[in-house]
Amino acid sequence: MIPVHLQPESHVPLYIQLRDQLRALVNTGDLRPGDRIPASRELAVQLGVHRTTVANAYAELESEGLIRGHVGRGTFILQEEAAAEKPQSAVPMPASNGNLRWESMFADERGDESLSRMAQAAPRGTISFLMARPATEFFPVEDLRNCTNAIWRREGSAVLQFGTADGYAPLKQCLVSMLRGDGYEAADENLLITDGCQQALDLLCKAFVRPGDTVLIENPTYPGTLAVLAGARARVLGVPVRTESGPGTPPGADVSAIEAVLMQNRVKMIILTPDFHNPTGTTLPIAERRRLLDLAARFQVPIVEDHIYARLRARGERVPSLKQLDRANVVIHIDSFSKIAFPGLRVGWIVAPPNVVERLRLVKQTTHLHTGQLTQAILAEYMRRGHLTRHLERTRKAYSARLCALELALVKHMPHGTKWTRPEGGMCVWVELPPGFDASELLIHVRERGVLFSPGRYFYLQNPMPNTLRLGFSDLNEREIARGVATLADVLRIEMRKRQRGARRAEMPRVALV
Amino acid sequence: MIPVHLQPESHVPLYIQLRDQLRALVNTGDLRPGDRIPASRELAVQLGVHRTTVANAYAELESEGLIRGHVGRGTFILQEEAAAEKPQSAVPMPASNGNLRWESMFADERGDESLSRMAQAAPRGTISFLMARPATEFFPVEDLRNCTNAIWRREGSAVLQFGTADGYAPLKQCLVSMLRGDGYEAADENLLITDGCQQALDLLCKAFVRPGDTVLIENPTYPGTLAVLAGARARVLGVPVRTESGPGTPPGADVSAIEAVLMQNRVKMIILTPDFHNPTGTTLPIAERRRLLDLAARFQVPIVEDHIYARLRARGERVPSLKQLDRANVVIHIDSFSKIAFPGLRVGWIVAPPNVVERLRLVKQTTHLHTGQLTQAILAEYMRRGHLTRHLERTRKAYSARLCALELALVKHMPHGTKWTRPEGGMCVWVELPPGFDASELLIHVRERGVLFSPGRYFYLQNPMPNTLRLGFSDLNEREIARGVATLADVLRIEMRKRQRGARRAEMPRVALV
Repeated sequence: MIPVHLQPESHVPLYIQLRDQLRALVNTGDLRPGDRIPASRELAVQLGVHRTTVANAYAELESEGLIRGHVGRGTFILQEEAAAEKPQSAVPMPASNGNLRWESMFADERGDESLSRMAQAAPRGTISFLMARPATEFFPVEDLRNCTNAIWRREGSAVLQFGTADGYAPLKQCLVSMLRGDGYEAADENLLITDGCQQALDLLCKAFVRPGDTVLIENPTYPGTLAVLAGARARVLGVPVRTESGPGTPPGADVSAIEAVLMQNRVKMIILTPDFHNPTGTTLPIAERRRLLDLAARFQVPIVEDHIYARLRARGERVPSLKQLDRANVVIHIDSFSKIAFPGLRVGWIVAPPNVVERLRLVKQTTHLHTGQLTQAILAEYMRRGHLTRHLERTRKAYSARLCALELALVKHMPHGTKWTRPEGGMCVWVELPPGFDASELLIHVRERGVLFSPGRYFYLQNPMPNTLRLGFSDLNEREIARGVATLADVLRIEMRKRQRGARRAEMPRVALV
Repeated sequence: MIPVHLQPESHVPLYIQLRDQLRALVNTGDLRPGDRIPASRELAVQLGVHRTTVANAYAELESEGLIRGHVGRGTFILQEEAAAEKPQSAVPMPASNGNLRWESMFADERGDESLSRMAQAAPRGTISFLMARPATEFFPVEDLRNCTNAIWRREGSAVLQFGTADGYAPLKQCLVSMLRGDGYEAADENLLITDGCQQALDLLCKAFVRPGDTVLIENPTYPGTLAVLAGARARVLGVPVRTESGPGTPPGADVSAIEAVLMQNRVKMIILTPDFHNPTGTTLPIAERRRLLDLAARFQVPIVEDHIYARLRARGERVPSLKQLDRANVVIHIDSFSKIAFPGLRVGWIVAPPNVVERLRLVKQTTHLHTGQLTQAILAEYMRRGHLTRHLERTRKAYSARLCALELALVKHMPHGTKWTRPEGGMCVWVELPPGFDASELLIHVRERGVLFSPGRYFYLQNPMPNTLRLGFSDLNEREIARGVATLADVLRIEMRKRQRGARRAEMPRVALV
């Protein structure tokens, strides 16, 4: 007689709560090898949850080797939890086959990857709002092929030899010109070529963050930032991002909250995405940018400005970047070709004061010597020929039309009580379901109908709102967007009706005897 | 009246000792802004050192902004040492111009880069034994251009989109085949594509090493290993590498010393280069490999096998890799295209048990998402067409001839008392000058005559032998090798004669009043 307690209001999806509680029961010995557990349909009825919730929990436990279903006989506990969680002896014990027990040697835990697994497992024809990535159909393969041939002919041997950690000089020149066009006077010594913004974050952590140092970020934020900070063993503090604005409550990162954190903590670094923030799509107004820069100068805290989406403005007026407004020299600006051009080539850049670039160069050398030279040379040639400007203009327009299509579909289909942000560009819209809905649960049903999105919980450091989700729209065409949103809205309505019915038995205890 | 004490027997080059002591005198206030210091010729006579030693120390201090020479007036102390070394207040003080004081924010110190600066500053015509890198003249640009065009035509759009962190699948297939040819049965799940061995080391540190964990390495070793371990805040222990062997004293890493370290320390990881070790060129015999594997299994310690040079065997019989001999599943094997093909493309791989690959994949995702797809696809095509095998065969022969030329030149020119290793392949030979010689000092003179090499001290974790140096021979032709060694030997003879003369005034105090 063993109880399972599910908390429907928690940010943890019900199926994960169930999975974890069953696993715990095995660890404590309350469930033993050979014990039979109820069929998923049976347990779903007992707990008052959807059968898919139980089926998902069982599937995860089965893949862990903890339970196994036998057709016609039922589902049974298979073995004890992996020995990895037991305390280590002074010399680690080999596994029963004499092999090394690698799991007990890893330095730390790594994050949840269920979303990317879901993306990879999606059957053809799935309408996936999961990713914020460029549309494949616009990739200008022929232009790139011509650029590549020019590189091979002109400097083939040179690009095959070791290069320099700061980057391929002609690419840095092209970026200096582009930045000048943005209104920011950079020089070669202000630039470091990276493998993209994820590497920029890794290098910045290595250069600045000692274990235990405090880093301030937006909450919610890009999960890659959370992952790299966890790896650096930083103490991470989040400030809320306002998705609804009005007089006195500007959109984007809450700068007053940042000030409060700075007054009470020695913060080593602030990481922000002021333009078309991922995942909310919000943009920080210029007045708030100025306030933020004043705070950074007053508290002497570097700001890392993630500029990766900023060139994808769909409408409204361009807001100067933090780097452009930076008088006290406190901003490190990171940017990439991944959203404006071709992520598969893995090239980005950092704009920073020369002494910071010099330090990052040394760190980069230790990390992987340098970014691949051939791809840097191709991108330089692509920029020099004026292709990038034209490609960006073309994709910007296309994504702008897709953003409109998404908003139209949301207005048309979404049930009352659903809210969403109105980004002026970028690649994603943030949706807030009526309170009490869990986007992770909704995803289970939506997925069965061939649609995918990212539940909001993947983007939170703390205080997750389980009723949020992110819709990446840039790599779906307008028809797919309309169909996807219609499906999402349809499933949401069904769930709302179920909930109304369920309200009648709301007092039913969610404790089951298994 | 201020004393400078130089220790000629120290592993620290004399000019660095002098530089550091002068800097210290400024910091303590013994030398003040405006004070005049002796001319380099004058101080050299006082200290009984070569004038170049003093000139080098002055040049470094001048580039730091600490001293300035005025023609006809002399050399003067310029200003106080940078404020960066002063203790920090609770909120860092901005610089006098209100800017952030970035130097005070960096997480740690970074290594000495004087060698790579020297390589970059070398005038045309310099014979540089500095690098262990492939010869540019063999790069098969035309073959690669054809492979690239095939990729653009066949899968241009796909390689431009985000890829997977474990690597481009067709490249992994090619590597599985190559490993099978080596006698090792790997599967796709045993492979992770990296940006080369430097990244492999970075990923392995992130996956396994917590700050303070102990890692065992060879001493001397590849400086990139020292750098990445310093960044990971590991406790690093070195075991000696035997460069002279005989009965009972096999060449390469001292396995008895490894056993002693394992008995007294909880070691998290062992990193070794069993084949054509960098910098010594030694190869660990098969019996020692077996002993090492037994130790690793007994103490349950993973071994990282750096296999980067192993395919460059010039003569003698191939020794099976640790991975091939690994019965207890303790070996992580790292390898790269950087020495056998094209370093500028930055592609390598790791062979490991599937659960280790899975963990490394997550770490790699956090580090830079994935390795560039275009270069992976080009290398896969290059392998598939059989080009790599042919290229490797061709360069192996060329490097083999260069190794012979180097040994011939050493035998012919080097004065009595000089010793060197006899590698069976790889890219470098380790030279031991007669005791008491400092290779860093020798480099100053050799450089003036257009020859460069790497002083041994750059490769040591501890107990450096200042009289050692590394000669990288693979990117010099046989004529250059002969000429370079003749010059090196000539300068060495001159220094030996100076020393004999100097022995007469050996009792002269090395204390100067400046």
